[in-house]
Amino acid sequence: MENQKTKITAEQGKHEIFIVREFDATTDLVFQAHTQPELLVQWMGLENHKMEIPIFENKNLGAWRFIHSDENGNSFGFCGVIHETEFAKRIIRTFEFEGLPERGHVSLEFLNFEGLPNDKTRLTTHIIFKSLEDRNAMVESGMEHGVIDSYNKLDSLLSGKN
Amino acid sequence: MENQKTKITAEQGKHEIFIVREFDATTDLVFQAHTQPELLVQWMGLENHKMEIPIFENKNLGAWRFIHSDENGNSFGFCGVIHETEFAKRIIRTFEFEGLPERGHVSLEFLNFEGLPNDKTRLTTHIIFKSLEDRNAMVESGMEHGVIDSYNKLDSLLSGKN
Repeated sequence: MENQKTKITAEQGKHEIFIVREFDATTDLVFQAHTQPELLVQWMGLENHKMEIPIFENKNLGAWRFIHSDENGNSFGFCGVIHETEFAKRIIRTFEFEGLPERGHVSLEFLNFEGLPNDKTRLTTHIIFKSLEDRNAMVESGMEHGVIDSYNKLDSLLSGKN
Repeated sequence: MENQKTKITAEQGKHEIFIVREFDATTDLVFQAHTQPELLVQWMGLENHKMEIPIFENKNLGAWRFIHSDENGNSFGFCGVIHETEFAKRIIRTFEFEGLPERGHVSLEFLNFEGLPNDKTRLTTHIIFKSLEDRNAMVESGMEHGVIDSYNKLDSLLSGKN
């Protein structure tokens, strides 16, 4: 799975995913866009949805929650805990989609922000899942489209900040 | 790896471990022994070490930290975040040994408390690791001995509470 910019790898038989994307902005800016709620809503929001962030504790042993609502009042949320956050370097956090039929399908994400020449950043997201089934369900959920779309919006946000 | 009571499974090539253990006590009691600091220190402490629990938020999106110290002042800690805790049923949390040469080797644990006939409990702990190397390092660290020893102490604690 690859478009010109975002590379998503889900090797057969392994309950993990790697997503690699480069941004034309410094690690400071890319990290801030991931940890400041007022920036997050500008690129993680969904088409025709309002995004709210009722919890965002950007600290080690913190927590987060996002809610997306459409104009008919339908909403769905995501939540997790932040094991570690290190400015411009790394975020380690759990992730769960609250809209699944049963709870407990939690994954663990490692976001690594790597500085490249010319003030660019390579963001590598490594996600480990409870099972191969959970991993495959995520891949088949249309994650690829969502990730590419969000990162394209993040490009626009970052270009206005350079 | 198996003694008479604790079954630890680490299938080749998979970055996960399963630990299954039955206790002669109700799910309520086994869960409480995992979530009440004054009980935890009675069975998770190490030989010749003092165990302290500076953080233990037994709630969804909470955090925890354990420190073990010997009489010479040497100490080592473990910490993590609690994604979900459901009384007598389930705990989902991250885990990190703070004494490793580098940070970031975080795993995700799913503890499942299952009631059995005659007020017994089967505890299944499913741990997923960032990599096969992390999983193997944990297995080779002497985890098996530590788990068996702690669970035997937990047996004693629970037998005093029935």
